[in-house]
Amino acid sequence: MSVKVLNVKEDILGANEEKAKKNRELLDKNHNILINIMSSPGAGKTSLIMQTINRFKDKISIAVIEGDIASTIDADKISSQDIPVIQINTAGACHLDAIMIEKALDKLALEETDLVIIENVGNLVCPAEFALGAHKTIMLLSVPEGDDKPHKYPLMFTEADVVLVNKTDVMPYFDFDIKAFSAAVSGLNPSARILPVSAKTGEGLELWFSWLEDMLK
Amino acid sequence: MSVKVLNVKEDILGANEEKAKKNRELLDKNHNILINIMSSPGAGKTSLIMQTINRFKDKISIAVIEGDIASTIDADKISSQDIPVIQINTAGACHLDAIMIEKALDKLALEETDLVIIENVGNLVCPAEFALGAHKTIMLLSVPEGDDKPHKYPLMFTEADVVLVNKTDVMPYFDFDIKAFSAAVSGLNPSARILPVSAKTGEGLELWFSWLEDMLK
Repeated sequence: MSVKVLNVKEDILGANEEKAKKNRELLDKNHNILINIMSSPGAGKTSLIMQTINRFKDKISIAVIEGDIASTIDADKISSQDIPVIQINTAGACHLDAIMIEKALDKLALEETDLVIIENVGNLVCPAEFALGAHKTIMLLSVPEGDDKPHKYPLMFTEADVVLVNKTDVMPYFDFDIKAFSAAVSGLNPSARILPVSAKTGEGLELWFSWLEDMLK
Repeated sequence: MSVKVLNVKEDILGANEEKAKKNRELLDKNHNILINIMSSPGAGKTSLIMQTINRFKDKISIAVIEGDIASTIDADKISSQDIPVIQINTAGACHLDAIMIEKALDKLALEETDLVIIENVGNLVCPAEFALGAHKTIMLLSVPEGDDKPHKYPLMFTEADVVLVNKTDVMPYFDFDIKAFSAAVSGLNPSARILPVSAKTGEGLELWFSWLEDMLK
């Protein structure tokens, strides 16, 4: 049977860009690098951040901004590593915006910080639409979510500088075609770096760490 | 180190309720049952709907409304079963709303339909905030997403009549505590029915089918 298509347009973007630019100016003044990490719920953002902190915390000064609808579960995990953490509870909103980040940056000792990591709200849609002032945009797609997601959530994949394919340790139990996935991402975003990793076992993380190291130089 | 919490309030709900009520009146007039299925991207909504169509299509008349940011991948899969499918492309919006559903219902032959299934946009946040006129709300949480999600996305779990824990076939490969998960869901929503299933292997689906059958009586 044929499929009928309705196109519904909706104005979902606010005047967020100007504030994001100001955030960037503040960061640049303080020689901070800001990365914005986005994914679906449960794709492994917090595990990746924990691994990244473990790897870099003896060399550089790191702070984390945690975005969540509710709870401080992730922030509590990360603060156990003796890293400054700002929790933003969005009270229902499905993404962080530049004003929230401005408020969070205001609470950090930026002059003593090298790297600020944002863990955005778990969502493949809205977070990609709101510039925060980040220098680089990272997204995680976990193997169990399926290889068709670039077609269904194109903006997120278009915006990402690095696409981490997480949970490669469970690849044998899912029908995930990494070649088809990579081709779809490259079709949307030819310059995106695609890195298969397991934030749980550590497999593949060296490439992520060296990308981050190059970026911090 | 202590965690600082910022609370950010944002007005994200429109005047959607009135339209949802009108949708419900239209459905009731035509003796249609409408169910709204929500989950993260890749949790298995389409597979569940395919299994449900397979089970019921010889007994009752089913139509499907597919919500997606972009693409007709899911709608194409479902229309291959010779079921009427309305694709709503939200052009970036992260959820369906009652106006979109009104337009979709207008394209269906409601007087000849028993069950209308909505596959909402893959997202654990916004879809729960917008009433559509559905008689029952179903959510899927897949095992790889983790058992902490009720704490982090409470509204979705509070709104659901049935919570399907999908992908039980990969349970051995993940640290998913079904008891802790069920306790968290029951804490938010004591009347929610929690059903572990695998839409891939069919395991546990009998309980879902019999719940649906009872509801259709």
